[in-house]
Amino acid sequence: MKLTFLGTGNSAMIPVYGCDCTACLEAQKNHKLRREKSSAFLEHNGKILLLDANAPDLMQRFPPGSIDRILLTHYHMDHVQSLFDLRWGISEPIRVISPDDPQGCDDLYKHPGILDFSTRAEPFQTFDWYGITITPLPLNHSRLSLGYGFEYEGKRLAYLTDTVGLPEQTMQWLKNFPVDWLIIDCNYPPETGGKKRTKKNHNDFGDILDIDRECQPGNIGMTHLSHDMVCWAEANSQVLSKRLRLMIDGDVLFFCE
Amino acid sequence: MKLTFLGTGNSAMIPVYGCDCTACLEAQKNHKLRREKSSAFLEHNGKILLLDANAPDLMQRFPPGSIDRILLTHYHMDHVQSLFDLRWGISEPIRVISPDDPQGCDDLYKHPGILDFSTRAEPFQTFDWYGITITPLPLNHSRLSLGYGFEYEGKRLAYLTDTVGLPEQTMQWLKNFPVDWLIIDCNYPPETGGKKRTKKNHNDFGDILDIDRECQPGNIGMTHLSHDMVCWAEANSQVLSKRLRLMIDGDVLFFCE
Repeated sequence: MKLTFLGTGNSAMIPVYGCDCTACLEAQKNHKLRREKSSAFLEHNGKILLLDANAPDLMQRFPPGSIDRILLTHYHMDHVQSLFDLRWGISEPIRVISPDDPQGCDDLYKHPGILDFSTRAEPFQTFDWYGITITPLPLNHSRLSLGYGFEYEGKRLAYLTDTVGLPEQTMQWLKNFPVDWLIIDCNYPPETGGKKRTKKNHNDFGDILDIDRECQPGNIGMTHLSHDMVCWAEANSQVLSKRLRLMIDGDVLFFCE
Repeated sequence: MKLTFLGTGNSAMIPVYGCDCTACLEAQKNHKLRREKSSAFLEHNGKILLLDANAPDLMQRFPPGSIDRILLTHYHMDHVQSLFDLRWGISEPIRVISPDDPQGCDDLYKHPGILDFSTRAEPFQTFDWYGITITPLPLNHSRLSLGYGFEYEGKRLAYLTDTVGLPEQTMQWLKNFPVDWLIIDCNYPPETGGKKRTKKNHNDFGDILDIDRECQPGNIGMTHLSHDMVCWAEANSQVLSKRLRLMIDGDVLFFCE
């Protein structure tokens, strides 16, 4: 089981179009520092499972026949954008497993093409993907969203985006089934000055520390990063470690070697 | 006034993902034969006006500050897809002129970011863009759609996609104001066998011949091409000419040199 990050940015990506902050300028100069919209893929037994579908080169990167399944966290545009092109392909249907969102996104349900949206993920109703047990985990977001836990031969990974904080049930799951890696939305730097939370849809770094204290995962990889978060992390690198890190596009995590 | 084609394919593009027809295989081998989703841009007086916004490399190709205006034909996803990324840029607002579609596409109106959707184009209500007179022209499509006529120093161009046939008023406009170039949706090869029309949303090649007979434009450039249309055109190249041609990505038309 191997997880590759296709994107680790938020919907504005890095560099943000027209921005001259440190993170954006560095990413303009060095393409390895660019961050596409957050998504990833799991490889296992020669099969590929996409976690969201928004990579700009998705159809070039994954040639026809190579995508076994697509697992969606939610139907916000920045997580499903590539499906609008992919659907018009000519191939066997590709099964898309997603939260039971009645709307989907734009006309995806009306004109699904080769995409089969009939399989819905329900919180805590586990299912199997070639021996990996997948557990849908509720998240807190403005749109019905699910993260996913993956377990294979005693190794565990959770991929939780988009969310602000975590629902109690999901927190409890993480405590009951400690993960080796928690991949989690950290869109914002920590809010300061004791202000009431103004960011309703995504975690800030303070939320990550709260979750870390409560669930104690083996490692935390932050994703869905804004340029503000990356700038802040560069200026406060002492808070990060090998165990608590910002992921970047192209990063790979191996499980069960 | 100079028109550059960013894309000349339909929503499935060419090559179609997973297709092994002649047109798709040739486009896989030779990238110059690829066709992205249909869009174009006009350059005039050092300014750029985008005609639809769906190019996969739009934000790389048009750096911040370089897009003066965006003119939308309609709000189907394959014509507005890049706006979902572009909106989160940091720049002066970019004015988007579009048909008065109450829905728009997904949450573009709700979260416009740097895009200003407040200017609506109305049929035959001309407006000016740096000395070019632009005339919105009604089209026949499943979504409220407008083509646009462009006139500068006696040279005329019309860009009409997406449409099946043309409304009588638009046909009359083309007869009253003969264009040097008619750029038009030709998604399909001609229907054969006297069947009743089954394609309700786009022109086939027979429609193009009908429009040509009635309006007699100087030249016709076909766009929004499906792989079926390109295959058919390759097998029936005698019907094409320098005057009646398939456009391809990267083609440039100069007016008023």
